[in-house]
Amino acid sequence: MTTGVRRRMGVEERRQQLIGVALELFARRSPDEVSIDEIASAAGISRPLVYHYFPGKLSLYEAALKRAAQDLASRFEEPHEGSLGGRLLRVMRRFFDFVDQHGPGFSALMRGGPAVSVGGAHSMSHVSATNALVDSVRQVAYEQILSHLRVENPPARLEMVVRSWISLVESTALLWLDGRRVPRAELEVKLVHDFAALAAVSAAFDEEMTALLRTLLKDEPNDGPFTDLATRLIALAS
Amino acid sequence: MTTGVRRRMGVEERRQQLIGVALELFARRSPDEVSIDEIASAAGISRPLVYHYFPGKLSLYEAALKRAAQDLASRFEEPHEGSLGGRLLRVMRRFFDFVDQHGPGFSALMRGGPAVSVGGAHSMSHVSATNALVDSVRQVAYEQILSHLRVENPPARLEMVVRSWISLVESTALLWLDGRRVPRAELEVKLVHDFAALAAVSAAFDEEMTALLRTLLKDEPNDGPFTDLATRLIALAS
Repeated sequence: MTTGVRRRMGVEERRQQLIGVALELFARRSPDEVSIDEIASAAGISRPLVYHYFPGKLSLYEAALKRAAQDLASRFEEPHEGSLGGRLLRVMRRFFDFVDQHGPGFSALMRGGPAVSVGGAHSMSHVSATNALVDSVRQVAYEQILSHLRVENPPARLEMVVRSWISLVESTALLWLDGRRVPRAELEVKLVHDFAALAAVSAAFDEEMTALLRTLLKDEPNDGPFTDLATRLIALAS
Repeated sequence: MTTGVRRRMGVEERRQQLIGVALELFARRSPDEVSIDEIASAAGISRPLVYHYFPGKLSLYEAALKRAAQDLASRFEEPHEGSLGGRLLRVMRRFFDFVDQHGPGFSALMRGGPAVSVGGAHSMSHVSATNALVDSVRQVAYEQILSHLRVENPPARLEMVVRSWISLVESTALLWLDGRRVPRAELEVKLVHDFAALAAVSAAFDEEMTALLRTLLKDEPNDGPFTDLATRLIALAS
């Protein structure tokens, strides 16, 4: 405000500003610890004015979680170029950027939204809405992976490997946030290897998965994470 | 009632009966689709009498989820005898027995309880309570595994392997329930191998984990799941 003139914002612009302010606060403390007063204060407007743009705390929270979910989903987009291991590693880096950036907000999103009573009878539908939002992000991740694997009709075992790996990624990120005792760069690489390992376990017991894995791996470079893991596992087993 | 005489139950006995009836119904349909009327009817008592034992639908649901959680936690208890792979496989069998037996009730438990408004302002605290309940079961599973691994102060990477594997088990079970397209016996074995694979990935990149894994594996039999997996992976990699 160097000019001393407070520029008036349009409704949508103000809503987006409030969402941005809320997400910044949720990145430092859990959403259920952040009050509307704090959001109003950080945005430089009055509490009643916040309620002019969002009818209640819950609707602002839902809008913020929705924007965060869209942001997260966008990080899964990756060009279909280069090795699969390299692509997955780049996605993991962007995913951990998101987790790092949102911190407690990410935890709240993954655990069904703010874990306190914030709106009486609306609360449970909020949990359903948050669950649906998170499920939609999981679905985007799942479909992105299938498209990179060039599989249109995944067999049940492949679906299970991909979807259960996505939940492994989520839980690894939540564990990382709780103390950050392992460097995130190590975890990004580890999760790529975990994917290869889970696919390999499935392939070790199922011919369809073996054939699929062989097709995928024939184009992988010798210094990529999949080959690297196989070499290390063989060394470990011997 | 072959005698034609309806025996009067004590308060605690009646509560336990209602919980049992509720769990049987939740095993066939999601808890939020089961009404108090149905529970009353299945228990052979009137709706007002249900409310005499449980002040509201939510309190009966919470009691049912609590008993289910205790039941689940008890299935992780396994004698410290025989190979680690064999022990883990027996636990996985009992876990899938539970999942099979509870079906939609298990899904509801894992997704924060019944996903509808069932009690107005109490709803969010119900979600918190359910989350806390599920977390306590996860903690029991985690501590059981550590005790079998004979590790008292787990390094951060081991904690991450064990806890993220537990979430992999949960998500695999939820995916299995959704269509049962892969035989559960295959998944029980697969999850044991997944544990070995995730531990191996961690060990492939960390000396402390390597040492730990070598100690654990030296007592494993040559026909156990860990050795089996290593052999198959080597065959796959060649």
